[in-house]
Amino acid sequence: MAGFNVRSVLVTGANRGIGLELVKQFLEKSNPPEWVFATCRDPEGERAQQLKNLASRHPNLAIVALEATDPASIKAAATRVEEHLKSSGLNLLINNAGIVRPSTLESETPEDMSLVYATNVTGPLLVSQAFLPLLKKAAQGSPQPGLSCSKAAIVNMSSECGSITNLIAWELVQVVSYRCSKAALNMLTKCQSLGYEGDGILSIAVHPGWVQTDMGRAGRLSPLGLSVQGILNVLPTLSKKDNGAFVNWEGKVLPW
Amino acid sequence: MAGFNVRSVLVTGANRGIGLELVKQFLEKSNPPEWVFATCRDPEGERAQQLKNLASRHPNLAIVALEATDPASIKAAATRVEEHLKSSGLNLLINNAGIVRPSTLESETPEDMSLVYATNVTGPLLVSQAFLPLLKKAAQGSPQPGLSCSKAAIVNMSSECGSITNLIAWELVQVVSYRCSKAALNMLTKCQSLGYEGDGILSIAVHPGWVQTDMGRAGRLSPLGLSVQGILNVLPTLSKKDNGAFVNWEGKVLPW
Repeated sequence: MAGFNVRSVLVTGANRGIGLELVKQFLEKSNPPEWVFATCRDPEGERAQQLKNLASRHPNLAIVALEATDPASIKAAATRVEEHLKSSGLNLLINNAGIVRPSTLESETPEDMSLVYATNVTGPLLVSQAFLPLLKKAAQGSPQPGLSCSKAAIVNMSSECGSITNLIAWELVQVVSYRCSKAALNMLTKCQSLGYEGDGILSIAVHPGWVQTDMGRAGRLSPLGLSVQGILNVLPTLSKKDNGAFVNWEGKVLPW
Repeated sequence: MAGFNVRSVLVTGANRGIGLELVKQFLEKSNPPEWVFATCRDPEGERAQQLKNLASRHPNLAIVALEATDPASIKAAATRVEEHLKSSGLNLLINNAGIVRPSTLESETPEDMSLVYATNVTGPLLVSQAFLPLLKKAAQGSPQPGLSCSKAAIVNMSSECGSITNLIAWELVQVVSYRCSKAALNMLTKCQSLGYEGDGILSIAVHPGWVQTDMGRAGRLSPLGLSVQGILNVLPTLSKKDNGAFVNWEGKVLPW
């Protein structure tokens, strides 16, 4: 990660799993960001305790309330982040917050279809809309040409489960609402890559691997730390040619 | 269409555009189905007048109320169709009902994201769940080996706009909620192809072309009748090897 100099990064769903590990590894870098914004639904709640412990040791960590299905909460979070950043922009937005609901084709419900989509697709859309002015500001303030994650980028945490080409692990987990949401998130990423390229913002969909979190129980397991380390190794290698792509934690391009 | 002998077909969103034209062309076949079920939200309303005119001339056309975002309405429709079919099953389910809302990346709203997804993705999921027993019955009652549209099939009316690989016409229409919904519908189709293949049911996603309807105004225009004729020529050619594919009205396979 020698070349990965991110001045500011925001991670949603940062109180557990991949989000929390991303925050930890950003803070532990030899050249940590000036600001790491960790968002979660309830920063005062018990489930944010690990983030609070980190914040007590890292003054560059700000915990911000953000509920991805609530537009007012997202706007309030953007305002708070802007206050911290003062005149500078936000370099890296990682839309990590997501949910999964167990289901089969026959048991899938309209309630879960709606909730999973609102969280996994509409959430990243609205968060990106709200933070767009700060991402644009970061791009405008950067001397770097082209596109990069240290200049200005939206990283949408997708899943191999969103690949229509390779419908993996169907025998293990059908999770139709989740698969549909991740295919839609991949589409959103592609739309953002076209919509925001002119603003100097890179957009990318990342599959973090099948890791040991509350959410990912099935399939091949690999340690969470290794997966996040992989992501942080891949992000600085991405440039304009990767805009709108779907890559895994090892940098391999995945099919839609 | 010499080999296309469908005993029963159901088309959702059948009071206008592609749905209405599908119903017309099925009824006008030299060997029309025993039953054509045309569903729409309000069979008594003014917007169903063309269907009612058709029904007065074709006793094998049944108009059935079905609101794709209302599970109770879907179940009631399945019960009504079962009463008509008596002991036989439903061969062909065409999930055609769909909506589009004008939008850009920046103007897209959570309300439209939710409504478009509920109609274009959750609707086809729920309709397929509700009619699954009738589709299974048709497959079981068929002497045909393999999979085919005249045996038992789910046809999801998708769109080229759902192709993540080729994000077409971005400069003309961004319609993010629509694109995301169609990518998700393609994923649903792939899931259905795996989930229902063992039941003898074919699942397919079809792009009808850019046709002159209330919904499709932008892009290259081709007459509606020609597009639907194309679809009715393609459907009987589909078999097990096509299960879970994404094809256009000319039978060309489209990328995800």
